[in-house]
Amino acid sequence: MKSLSQSQWTLAEIAVHLGGVVIGDPDTIITGVAAVDEAGTGDLVFAESAAFLARALDSAATAVLAAECPDPAPAKPIIQVEVPRLAFVQFLEALAPPIAAPEGIHPTVQMGRNVSLGTNVGIGAHVVLGNDVTLEEGVRLFPGVYIGDGCVVGKDTVLSPNVVLYRGVRVGKGCLIHAGTVLGSDGFGFMPVGGRLRKVPHLGGVEVGDDVEIGANTCIDRAKTGMTTIGSGTKIDNLVHIAHNVNIGPSCVLAGQVGIAGSTTLGIGVMLGGQVGIKDHLQVADGVQMGAQSGLMKSAAAGQVLFGSPAIPVQTKLKEMAAAAKMPDALRKIHAMERRLAELERRLQADAPTEDK
Amino acid sequence: MKSLSQSQWTLAEIAVHLGGVVIGDPDTIITGVAAVDEAGTGDLVFAESAAFLARALDSAATAVLAAECPDPAPAKPIIQVEVPRLAFVQFLEALAPPIAAPEGIHPTVQMGRNVSLGTNVGIGAHVVLGNDVTLEEGVRLFPGVYIGDGCVVGKDTVLSPNVVLYRGVRVGKGCLIHAGTVLGSDGFGFMPVGGRLRKVPHLGGVEVGDDVEIGANTCIDRAKTGMTTIGSGTKIDNLVHIAHNVNIGPSCVLAGQVGIAGSTTLGIGVMLGGQVGIKDHLQVADGVQMGAQSGLMKSAAAGQVLFGSPAIPVQTKLKEMAAAAKMPDALRKIHAMERRLAELERRLQADAPTEDK
Amino acid sequence: MKSLSQSQWTLAEIAVHLGGVVIGDPDTIITGVAAVDEAGTGDLVFAESAAFLARALDSAATAVLAAECPDPAPAKPIIQVEVPRLAFVQFLEALAPPIAAPEGIHPTVQMGRNVSLGTNVGIGAHVVLGNDVTLEEGVRLFPGVYIGDGCVVGKDTVLSPNVVLYRGVRVGKGCLIHAGTVLGSDGFGFMPVGGRLRKVPHLGGVEVGDDVEIGANTCIDRAKTGMTTIGSGTKIDNLVHIAHNVNIGPSCVLAGQVGIAGSTTLGIGVMLGGQVGIKDHLQVADGVQMGAQSGLMKSAAAGQVLFGSPAIPVQTKLKEMAAAAKMPDALRKIHAMERRLAELERRLQADAPTEDK
Repeated sequence: MKSLSQSQWTLAEIAVHLGGVVIGDPDTIITGVAAVDEAGTGDLVFAESAAFLARALDSAATAVLAAECPDPAPAKPIIQVEVPRLAFVQFLEALAPPIAAPEGIHPTVQMGRNVSLGTNVGIGAHVVLGNDVTLEEGVRLFPGVYIGDGCVVGKDTVLSPNVVLYRGVRVGKGCLIHAGTVLGSDGFGFMPVGGRLRKVPHLGGVEVGDDVEIGANTCIDRAKTGMTTIGSGTKIDNLVHIAHNVNIGPSCVLAGQVGIAGSTTLGIGVMLGGQVGIKDHLQVADGVQMGAQSGLMKSAAAGQVLFGSPAIPVQTKLKEMAAAAKMPDALRKIHAMERRLAELERRLQADAPTEDK
Repeated sequence: MKSLSQSQWTLAEIAVHLGGVVIGDPDTIITGVAAVDEAGTGDLVFAESAAFLARALDSAATAVLAAECPDPAPAKPIIQVEVPRLAFVQFLEALAPPIAAPEGIHPTVQMGRNVSLGTNVGIGAHVVLGNDVTLEEGVRLFPGVYIGDGCVVGKDTVLSPNVVLYRGVRVGKGCLIHAGTVLGSDGFGFMPVGGRLRKVPHLGGVEVGDDVEIGANTCIDRAKTGMTTIGSGTKIDNLVHIAHNVNIGPSCVLAGQVGIAGSTTLGIGVMLGGQVGIKDHLQVADGVQMGAQSGLMKSAAAGQVLFGSPAIPVQTKLKEMAAAAKMPDALRKIHAMERRLAELERRLQADAPTEDK
Repeated sequence: MKSLSQSQWTLAEIAVHLGGVVIGDPDTIITGVAAVDEAGTGDLVFAESAAFLARALDSAATAVLAAECPDPAPAKPIIQVEVPRLAFVQFLEALAPPIAAPEGIHPTVQMGRNVSLGTNVGIGAHVVLGNDVTLEEGVRLFPGVYIGDGCVVGKDTVLSPNVVLYRGVRVGKGCLIHAGTVLGSDGFGFMPVGGRLRKVPHLGGVEVGDDVEIGANTCIDRAKTGMTTIGSGTKIDNLVHIAHNVNIGPSCVLAGQVGIAGSTTLGIGVMLGGQVGIKDHLQVADGVQMGAQSGLMKSAAAGQVLFGSPAIPVQTKLKEMAAAAKMPDALRKIHAMERRLAELERRLQADAPTEDK
């Protein structure tokens, strides 16, 4: 890691911070963190298994977070902790600068009637709040945020610059929404009436649970009636499109540029790769996983691992792909066999002149 | 529908509003609307055919909008109207709260020289208008909108928060553009000159017709020369990319995350599913339909229904997909047949030692 | 070109401007430019080869930029220049109106502590600058731009309306970033710890080289540690998603809606068609080209031309596609051959009753 942290730490200091034990020289200096493959001098890495520990000990890293220590102790120092993955994130958190979110209410903020502000709310320049808005304790709004009438933003949630919440959107506690993201724009619904497409009014809303992170320039549409919902603990990347009346369960992970059409439901812990598309009105059960660029055209049972457009079970898809690669050759074989078959038939015909009797 | 409407209506009131006739108890209370599959107590649904009416009558809905009434009249009340679909949208419109658009000119608005404002124009906080901008009667600009020099926005058009119109963009009457959408950014054109990519200046503009709705965070680029055009009555969803010099006809429907490359033309009533991509310089004739995630690589004749990447007629694609699923098995059959053929050839050879004569 | 330029030029004036020589009437009036296929009266076109020159001379254009002149000179006038492509762009540049970028510091701008402004910096209304921001000479920020703490924007770079730079982002000289684009939002990284997805802090940054153009509503995430980098001279279109720790080399071209997953590296001059997706942690070597909607799942060697999802060499993919189209027919042939084979086997069996001896 190149000079991202201003400070340096000794292994002893880190071990105290993480509740671990140093095996090796406690005065060893750590200046950053890295993945094992990219680590260099001064870096701390982590290892979750004996195999990863062996790789970490072979790496250029200066020290390793691990749950176990080989016997005898290796030359490279180890900080022994209960859960190396957790300790690693905790160390990253210690390195991270505090988020430079707005504090206080900037004088340029425009506020509607009947706005309710919790304690320690910070609102940046040029933010606009509608009527009947509630911002709970510790909410931080970066400059340029727009919040429509009747919205509720939960405790400690942070909205990045230029985020837009249309009227009536509810966001839970401890959420982080990145710049330019739009929640609550009208769903895409039109009825052909008398030769033109007449807009179907969207009376519903959007409801986001707690501990949700949403990337930049993502769009989540309001429901026709009822709610478009995002479950607690779900993580959504940049440029994702979530249509009206979609219901996404808790702890889902949606990678960049995913698109989900109207009224589809995702269960718990669904994982979607980048650019995945899902048709409207489907049921995607708990734990379904879809590979990047896959397209789902029918509902998926719990735990299915799907790939392709249209998406099918990944093992089936891999077999089809392997077969497809052999098809040009197979076509030549079929052609050759047809000639050989015809030749055999001709010869048998010739050999058996009396068969017709 | 869960408590989205503050009010409740009797069937008699609704019938008066829609110009229909109640068959059943006119004092029945309606509290919301729903699709037939999702309807519950208090909901009004609509049915366009005898088959749908039967389903609607079997549903949990409280009452049904229909054009005909079975004889004898069913237990569930009906409001008889000429066009149930239209009546349903009209009832939704009656339920919908009025759009809380800005009224008057907010004191924080920044205006250039020679701005022309029609009557009843509403401009929200922090909006910026360039020079020579025209906003016709009834235009509403939400906070954070930016409008460059020389733009024209037609009667009653609404621009949502943070919409950006670059210089010279023209938007027609009665349009609705959702938050974060950008019209008139430079087309993506570069010429390799002397070892670097030199920008091709974009002198053209963007022209949007009347009654167009455009979703959130969509991008429509200005033309190199001439105009990028969006026909009247066309509806475009979120996160759509429309490149320079594209011409989209009237009454088209483009779902979320569609991308159309430069100088391609769409006819009347073209319908594109989510994540569809279309190559540059193609002609897509009237009424073409493309399934989600399809990719068009050559021009398409009127009325074609296409699917796949590259896109082909949907019936052909479905046959190819069915065949692809059989390919792993077909390869085994080919292999087995080759062995059987070789065996037959060997035996015929053995049986006919004198053939060479 | 329809009345996009206010002025008109004689061929003599244009030739002086471009350092060329008129062959034909120097008083011929030019009013615009066009591609050969779309040219009309008054238009100037360019031709880079003898074949294109013949097409240009046959077109409706009024005059042609060319490197050579046929003998005898044609009826249509020619301006002879060394590099017609370059001359054409130079003439477009002459036609283009100057970019109407902000000048001076608008009184509504909000500035943090320790902001460093070069000469001739222009900052539009409602722009917000954090602490320790550096804007070099000639930088132009359109209204609504947000720049976080510690950002550096290089000489003559232009940021369009509502662009967001999170803290610590560095943009080089002579760049143009279009409206709504977000640089430096957190990468999408979570670790499952104790049954929930715990955010991995993103300590790194984003570094954009010189002469880079980035389209509208594009997202480039900050690195976990280290930098997400965009090489000098690279051009990125609208709605592109570039994840944390991606490294894009110089002179690359990324079309609309491309998505690149974390830690992937692109070499020099890589060209990606619209909606292409690339998996994380891959190496894409110099000069690789990928067709629209392709999806890369493994690293690609220099100069490869790839197509499909998953992407394979384009020639192989075209053969697979041709074979796939023949598969429904091939399946019928396989079925027919199986019957014929069985019949032959039956007959040989019948003809050779004593074979078992």
